[in-house]
Amino acid sequence: MDKLELCKANNVPLTPITFLKRASECYPNRTSIIYGNYRFTWPQTYDRCCRLAAFLLSLNITRNDVVSILAPNVPAMYEVHFSVPMTGTVLNPINTRLDAKTIAVILRHAEPKVVFVDHEFAPLNREVFRLLSFGELQAHSLIIFINEIGSTTNPSSKELDYEGLIRETETTPSLSATTFLVHDENDPISLNYTSGTTSEPKGVVVSHRGAYLSALSSIIGWEMAIRPVYLWTLPMFHGTGWTHTWSVAARGGTNICIRSVTALEIYKNIDLHEVTHMCCAPTVFKILLEGGGTGQISRSPPVRVLTGGSAPPAALIEKVQRLGFQLMHSYGLTEATGSVLFCEWQDEWNRLPADRQMQLKARQGVSNLAIADVDVKNTKTKESVPRDVKTIGEIVIKGSNIMKGYLNNPKATIEVFKHGWLNTGYIGVIYPDGHLEIKDRSKDIIISGGENISSIEVEKVLYEHQEVMEAAVVAMPHPLWGETPCAFVVLKKGEKKSMTKEEDLIKHCRENMPHYTCPRKVVFLEELPKNGIGKILKPKLRDIAKGLVVDEDDIGSKKVQGTGVNQVSSKL
Amino acid sequence: MDKLELCKANNVPLTPITFLKRASECYPNRTSIIYGNYRFTWPQTYDRCCRLAAFLLSLNITRNDVVSILAPNVPAMYEVHFSVPMTGTVLNPINTRLDAKTIAVILRHAEPKVVFVDHEFAPLNREVFRLLSFGELQAHSLIIFINEIGSTTNPSSKELDYEGLIRETETTPSLSATTFLVHDENDPISLNYTSGTTSEPKGVVVSHRGAYLSALSSIIGWEMAIRPVYLWTLPMFHGTGWTHTWSVAARGGTNICIRSVTALEIYKNIDLHEVTHMCCAPTVFKILLEGGGTGQISRSPPVRVLTGGSAPPAALIEKVQRLGFQLMHSYGLTEATGSVLFCEWQDEWNRLPADRQMQLKARQGVSNLAIADVDVKNTKTKESVPRDVKTIGEIVIKGSNIMKGYLNNPKATIEVFKHGWLNTGYIGVIYPDGHLEIKDRSKDIIISGGENISSIEVEKVLYEHQEVMEAAVVAMPHPLWGETPCAFVVLKKGEKKSMTKEEDLIKHCRENMPHYTCPRKVVFLEELPKNGIGKILKPKLRDIAKGLVVDEDDIGSKKVQGTGVNQVSSKL
Repeated sequence: MDKLELCKANNVPLTPITFLKRASECYPNRTSIIYGNYRFTWPQTYDRCCRLAAFLLSLNITRNDVVSILAPNVPAMYEVHFSVPMTGTVLNPINTRLDAKTIAVILRHAEPKVVFVDHEFAPLNREVFRLLSFGELQAHSLIIFINEIGSTTNPSSKELDYEGLIRETETTPSLSATTFLVHDENDPISLNYTSGTTSEPKGVVVSHRGAYLSALSSIIGWEMAIRPVYLWTLPMFHGTGWTHTWSVAARGGTNICIRSVTALEIYKNIDLHEVTHMCCAPTVFKILLEGGGTGQISRSPPVRVLTGGSAPPAALIEKVQRLGFQLMHSYGLTEATGSVLFCEWQDEWNRLPADRQMQLKARQGVSNLAIADVDVKNTKTKESVPRDVKTIGEIVIKGSNIMKGYLNNPKATIEVFKHGWLNTGYIGVIYPDGHLEIKDRSKDIIISGGENISSIEVEKVLYEHQEVMEAAVVAMPHPLWGETPCAFVVLKKGEKKSMTKEEDLIKHCRENMPHYTCPRKVVFLEELPKNGIGKILKPKLRDIAKGLVVDEDDIGSKKVQGTGVNQVSSKL
Repeated sequence: MDKLELCKANNVPLTPITFLKRASECYPNRTSIIYGNYRFTWPQTYDRCCRLAAFLLSLNITRNDVVSILAPNVPAMYEVHFSVPMTGTVLNPINTRLDAKTIAVILRHAEPKVVFVDHEFAPLNREVFRLLSFGELQAHSLIIFINEIGSTTNPSSKELDYEGLIRETETTPSLSATTFLVHDENDPISLNYTSGTTSEPKGVVVSHRGAYLSALSSIIGWEMAIRPVYLWTLPMFHGTGWTHTWSVAARGGTNICIRSVTALEIYKNIDLHEVTHMCCAPTVFKILLEGGGTGQISRSPPVRVLTGGSAPPAALIEKVQRLGFQLMHSYGLTEATGSVLFCEWQDEWNRLPADRQMQLKARQGVSNLAIADVDVKNTKTKESVPRDVKTIGEIVIKGSNIMKGYLNNPKATIEVFKHGWLNTGYIGVIYPDGHLEIKDRSKDIIISGGENISSIEVEKVLYEHQEVMEAAVVAMPHPLWGETPCAFVVLKKGEKKSMTKEEDLIKHCRENMPHYTCPRKVVFLEELPKNGIGKILKPKLRDIAKGLVVDEDDIGSKKVQGTGVNQVSSKL
């Protein structure tokens, strides 16, 4: 058996960029991208990517070099997910919602040879480059300016123009193979900096092999049928669009690109192009709910929405589904190259009451097929927890779609891969039917009198209150119990001012959960502090909670406006 | 970037046997196998496989050793697809329709350490072992007897009993990893001997990596949704069940095992268990059509059938679909680890007339996502043919799911992998929409006056005649043109004897295709000669055709009963 050596015919690197040439050959008449009035076919997208790749090659950039991009979900942003790795270089999509200082930190760390900048972020980029000292990047980093397609505005003389480069560069024969210039599937394809709710951003390096496997298993986990019409509400920079930049090509789908994620844009594009699929963090539900009252209530078939990032409470899922969206809940990590768990629906659940269905849907589900193993382990003994829904432990994962590690950060890499697993830092339980449910990030667990309280569980109950728009629960100090839950709540904006008070919400909690898990304090805010990808910044809330005092006799009417909070929010 | 080394958390061998432990954890309450009155759950199947694997390990068999099996689609046959490769050894499922002599050739070549034999094939197996000289296998090959589950018949004292071993062996901790004892994804998982319509059987060695990728991409290509109910009409020994032994586990599906593929068994099990999926060669359509007249005409939703092996004519597809089956056409090869092309349906085709839809459905389609590249190349110049439906060439493939090679046959391995591709030996064309259509095996092309005639094209027209049940066309010698088509036809068995004559069919052909491509001779048979997996044996027909004389003036009433043919058929 060992005499059978691998050869060119049976040993081809696994990389999702193979999907591009295949799409151009298998779906030649199919629209690849729609952006406003512009439309491309798959052969056109393939051609544009080859031309841009040829230009990058002409710069003598080489394997493992980094190419960064600062752009919204426009066609160029989609194309670089192919054209950059085609050349053997590494794509670094930057979170456009970050401030100049954080982006400067990222660029200093990633050391890109080329930076693509969309015109919308040109001012931000100028600020970033002012922050970088001379010689750090200016000397060897080339900026390519992405203008609106068809625009006649020229970039400044120092900058190259994306559309101009595509027009003027011919493709090269070296790009003719299906795998282009990728020779080793374990080479890096992308570098995404994690949102960093708590610490310095870390650069997650993903391999071609990992991205390929995640893209395939996401198609299966989500049951993405052939030829989807995919609306880009999820930023492509977020975990590289959870690998759907590549999976849409694999399915011969159509990418609906939009510059800004507003209710108007979402509903307009859904109706115009008969959107079948979209992904988003639960924060987008707020946009859908606020803009959904304009009559677009039922859709047939419903738009299939894959959601992740944080656990959506059952009550929220139900509200969004009423608008004509069919939600599937997923749990993922940038470090695991996208979605790890999918809440696979079981037909027998259709016979259950609606509220029970939503509870089942709120669980994170079962592993995708590229994950070799997922487990929940006792954080101290490292033994698997029983499948009893009660015993919590840390979720750990292994598989070939897990990241290669953090760039230039051996300490964090060793730490996260300790004991032969990716240690996610998330606390969860397993149901007897094999579905996982995340209880919290280990950092967010509240330990009260020796009992673990899941902040997510408390938030779930708060969301069930009809006046609550958003809720976040963190630990606050307690003289007797060590910690106790403190809730930060944004109320719905109705025509008349809400009359809901702190005691109403605490009463609601006490009626629906054990007494010791109820918040002792409720702080009303106009807005919750969030990071660049819409994740609630619990460390900021914890800082505020630390300064609050528990007074058991005075569950009161004090309404904190959280002045410091909103300022923090706008900065991150 | 290169400093990021692979580790246990992010580098796990790709193997479809990971699907087994996952199924037992993610689908613990789901039925894995139904066989008559017996039912197993996924945890039970996992447990049974672990016990059998532990027994195999106790024999000190080791990596790359071969374990053969001679069994129909019973639970044991399904289980060995996991339990054998779990131990690092190689599964060799043998075609049970072969004669003792051919099986002896295979065993002599494969040199198995263990042979599993189902009780139905015990007499055949005894004949096989009589043919093997002493010392060839008897000395070191252990036989494990598969009795009916629950049967009290004991095997002879020399043979071990499958159910007894499972009952009596405890699993070992060495089998606790998800990938069990597989440490290199390029190690072999299976050894399947090709049907060999023309030559000695060749042993196709497939890797764990190849099987994993094929299983995943078959799920996507066929759009096999979660929790299928899969009826085993396709023999599991055929290209190892086109990888669906593994894909059903990946989807948490239920395997309906049946001992014999009869119309009664098929329709009974479809109705009893609400079958959603099945695979078969087009020869099974004959069984479906003959048994389908008993009222089971419409099914909702229809049973999804993946068919391959030979190109089903459009007319045949339509007839089968009317019985409540929804056909998808696929093209595969044992050498490519199952299905290579899938005829992906396009919604816009639903608006076309029914006959046009069936023509589109008869094409072989577009490549699966594990195939890195597929092309049609001019057999002489090796250049890609234009996508014009007219220019024929050989279909060539590359990708990591292509076999490792032929066991102990370097000559054939080098030949089939020449020029860096798997050279399939099939002649095809490409449509402008990217779909491939197979015109013929290169061996079956008829060359008449310098023109290529596809035997499949002639067969298609014959199948459109309402009296034709089966048709096969081969070359017969022609004094002027070199070769000319000769048709072998089986007529439908109706209540009254068919009056269709040779001249009727030739007239039908002349009305529907170019004159030079029409058969000059039609031979009526009771049955077409077929090999063990139901493929029509064209070499046998060519032998007969060689002896026939073309007489242009006497397209006559001669009806050959093909005495020699049926004898040949029953032997193979």
